[in-house]
Amino acid sequence: MPDSVPEPGYIKYIEHWGSDKRIIEAARMSTNKGFKGWPKDEKLLGYLWRNKHYTPFEMAGMVLEIKAPIFVFREWHRHRTQSYNEMSARYTPLPDENYIPTLERIKMDGGKNKQAVGVGPKISDVRANIWLKDLRFSYLVSQNTYAEALVSGVPKELARLSVPAGRYSKMRASANLRNWLAFLSLRMAPEAQWEIRQYANDVAEHIELQFPRTYALFHETALSANVG
Amino acid sequence: MPDSVPEPGYIKYIEHWGSDKRIIEAARMSTNKGFKGWPKDEKLLGYLWRNKHYTPFEMAGMVLEIKAPIFVFREWHRHRTQSYNEMSARYTPLPDENYIPTLERIKMDGGKNKQAVGVGPKISDVRANIWLKDLRFSYLVSQNTYAEALVSGVPKELARLSVPAGRYSKMRASANLRNWLAFLSLRMAPEAQWEIRQYANDVAEHIELQFPRTYALFHETALSANVG
Amino acid sequence: MPDSVPEPGYIKYIEHWGSDKRIIEAARMSTNKGFKGWPKDEKLLGYLWRNKHYTPFEMAGMVLEIKAPIFVFREWHRHRTQSYNEMSARYTPLPDENYIPTLERIKMDGGKNKQAVGVGPKISDVRANIWLKDLRFSYLVSQNTYAEALVSGVPKELARLSVPAGRYSKMRASANLRNWLAFLSLRMAPEAQWEIRQYANDVAEHIELQFPRTYALFHETALSANVG
Amino acid sequence: MPDSVPEPGYIKYIEHWGSDKRIIEAARMSTNKGFKGWPKDEKLLGYLWRNKHYTPFEMAGMVLEIKAPIFVFREWHRHRTQSYNEMSARYTPLPDENYIPTLERIKMDGGKNKQAVGVGPKISDVRANIWLKDLRFSYLVSQNTYAEALVSGVPKELARLSVPAGRYSKMRASANLRNWLAFLSLRMAPEAQWEIRQYANDVAEHIELQFPRTYALFHETALSANVG
Repeated sequence: MPDSVPEPGYIKYIEHWGSDKRIIEAARMSTNKGFKGWPKDEKLLGYLWRNKHYTPFEMAGMVLEIKAPIFVFREWHRHRTQSYNEMSARYTPLPDENYIPTLERIKMDGGKNKQAVGVGPKISDVRANIWLKDLRFSYLVSQNTYAEALVSGVPKELARLSVPAGRYSKMRASANLRNWLAFLSLRMAPEAQWEIRQYANDVAEHIELQFPRTYALFHETALSANVG
Repeated sequence: MPDSVPEPGYIKYIEHWGSDKRIIEAARMSTNKGFKGWPKDEKLLGYLWRNKHYTPFEMAGMVLEIKAPIFVFREWHRHRTQSYNEMSARYTPLPDENYIPTLERIKMDGGKNKQAVGVGPKISDVRANIWLKDLRFSYLVSQNTYAEALVSGVPKELARLSVPAGRYSKMRASANLRNWLAFLSLRMAPEAQWEIRQYANDVAEHIELQFPRTYALFHETALSANVG
Repeated sequence: MPDSVPEPGYIKYIEHWGSDKRIIEAARMSTNKGFKGWPKDEKLLGYLWRNKHYTPFEMAGMVLEIKAPIFVFREWHRHRTQSYNEMSARYTPLPDENYIPTLERIKMDGGKNKQAVGVGPKISDVRANIWLKDLRFSYLVSQNTYAEALVSGVPKELARLSVPAGRYSKMRASANLRNWLAFLSLRMAPEAQWEIRQYANDVAEHIELQFPRTYALFHETALSANVG
Repeated sequence: MPDSVPEPGYIKYIEHWGSDKRIIEAARMSTNKGFKGWPKDEKLLGYLWRNKHYTPFEMAGMVLEIKAPIFVFREWHRHRTQSYNEMSARYTPLPDENYIPTLERIKMDGGKNKQAVGVGPKISDVRANIWLKDLRFSYLVSQNTYAEALVSGVPKELARLSVPAGRYSKMRASANLRNWLAFLSLRMAPEAQWEIRQYANDVAEHIELQFPRTYALFHETALSANVG
């Protein structure tokens, strides 16, 4: 399956601050020295990373905009070191966009991830398709109930009661590099749910683009260890 | 309307640590002295509170168990200084319990809170009742789709897609007293949604029981100012 | 007295991210809209600030480099939402630079700040000058002991025992705008020690330069209220 | 050398909250179940720990009182997830107690810890003793200058300039169990400075006493891995 966020979800780069070089500069505060240049300072960068001297990695960071289903945001928001501003159904109706998994996704072999596996023997195409049809119907009923509430004069903050976990929402998220890497180490891992893993993979690409040397170190080590 | 959490929601006290006295002891570290006794030390407690010396209030805290609809937890989890462990539909099916607002609640005058007010003129009993009937039907369809998914062998982590924002979940939450009071100052305020306000009111009762002198200070001042 | 950091201390701008506009963009996520333009959006910015909707102010920030005496850093580091990388006497000898207050500073009227005032009647020039001479001598003895330790082969991490609270150190500090403003509201206040207040004033100038509209709101309101 | 805090330093237990059982209860929220009993639930506790599901360990914690030299507190306060209330020389004179390392400590083999080793060949008893004599003299001059300032009417907040890094201070510190264990994993490690390591060892004893099953898991694994 494609390792990227399914439509209409997206990850959009807003901005970043700092750089691999800035991390070195911050670390060199401890010895009252500065950046010496690449590739020479790759050794120090690797030392910091491997010895878990993570504070210099707090001197850089990134702001992203994300569109994802609510159940993905529910997992995401457990990361309490990020800053969030999300679309709110208290203030504006959530557009009628809902996540529909592919047949391939539903039948996916979860590997070591027991949560990704169904209760019975592998689900048949027939049953999966029946559920997908019913899911679409459930989404439709939820939306009709929501739309009716809004038209009838039910307060928006109550109208949302029927909105399903599969409904898309949007947010901006900001974190420093240390905390983005902690997020990635948990959410790119095979135990993470497939959906948030696609988002994490996309976040990783933006991180790699702006912080290539740090990302290379993370990639080598962090998926088998914890970033903290 | 009754100022308490609607059934089947609840707030259950698990434990607390510290006390009004402990706060004084911590504050007195700065001058190398200790607790002198009540009511004498009420003056210092008031001084700390009014001058926003909040760190001594971090030396006490409380753990609670909460059952509430998902849309309430979505607001609650924005408080990133609390610790959470929530029931997860990845691991266990969420029981079929959903929040149904009362007619009185739907027609409530939101006061200064524009989010609590519907779009049109005050909603009629007839339209409100129609929506409530439709909400029950939407909940039913969502649940049937969910139950079918679980039986068919759809992984639990996907089966939850149809689960509505009104579905009940459960969690434990822990925070220090400073952060509980910050939570209360935002969630007991008239701008907060009525539902989370009922939970905040119940939290406040537990706080008042264990930390009566601190709560009295909060009650005097914090609803008109920010706790930080 | 001049309202700026005394030599050889300094505040050096390293970089910032976000802008007044980005704050509006983040806040508008809640209603699924974007930035509309100045001065139109000043109204929203003011609304966010005055109603303590602080999370959009977390979408911007600044990295600074600071040289200050250790007693100033001891106060600074109580702000646990900033990221720090400081020069460390475990790794490198701290240069022999120490803070010497001016006569004017020693005799300063502390106003409401009782900590800024001496125990007796206002200190005389004669006694203040005697203390200053003795302070220089104490600094000299501390430094000789430190230098001797380093030459003798005492580990750097122990050699530092004689280093005084007035010794200069250096660090980089990074925080988002919300947290910088919380820092300023406490450290620009008249109760703050004069020395850290000079640093806060300099931080404020950098904040004002990059986030002029937000700073204007802060300046109007925050010194009399808490940022949180 | 004795593995405990040198006099007059100390670690004093104030209180704790939660227990190994509470951690299980919190973790079982995810599956809507509760505590089943020991030793049965040791398996789950071990699973949580080894798979870095650390949030249930935030449902317990401890408050301690610590007396230690300022250079130890400077390292300690880098742990930004603890709450602190420290004695302050702005408010009260710091008693004349200063850390004097033993000869054994000065000559200690730092092992892999290069910071613990002097610059030259291993320091001789003679040179170490000369430095110790000079350190005592430096402490004496610092204190005389400090005492004189206080008597002369120099504000306390300035009088402290001559106070050395070896001077004892006191504080209360509170953290949840997850964060105490993160502290221990860094400060019990051989790379940590010997002095803070003694404090960490004492903290560990208090943790072990109250949370024996969790501590056993930590002890097995955490000194070779990161707690996060």
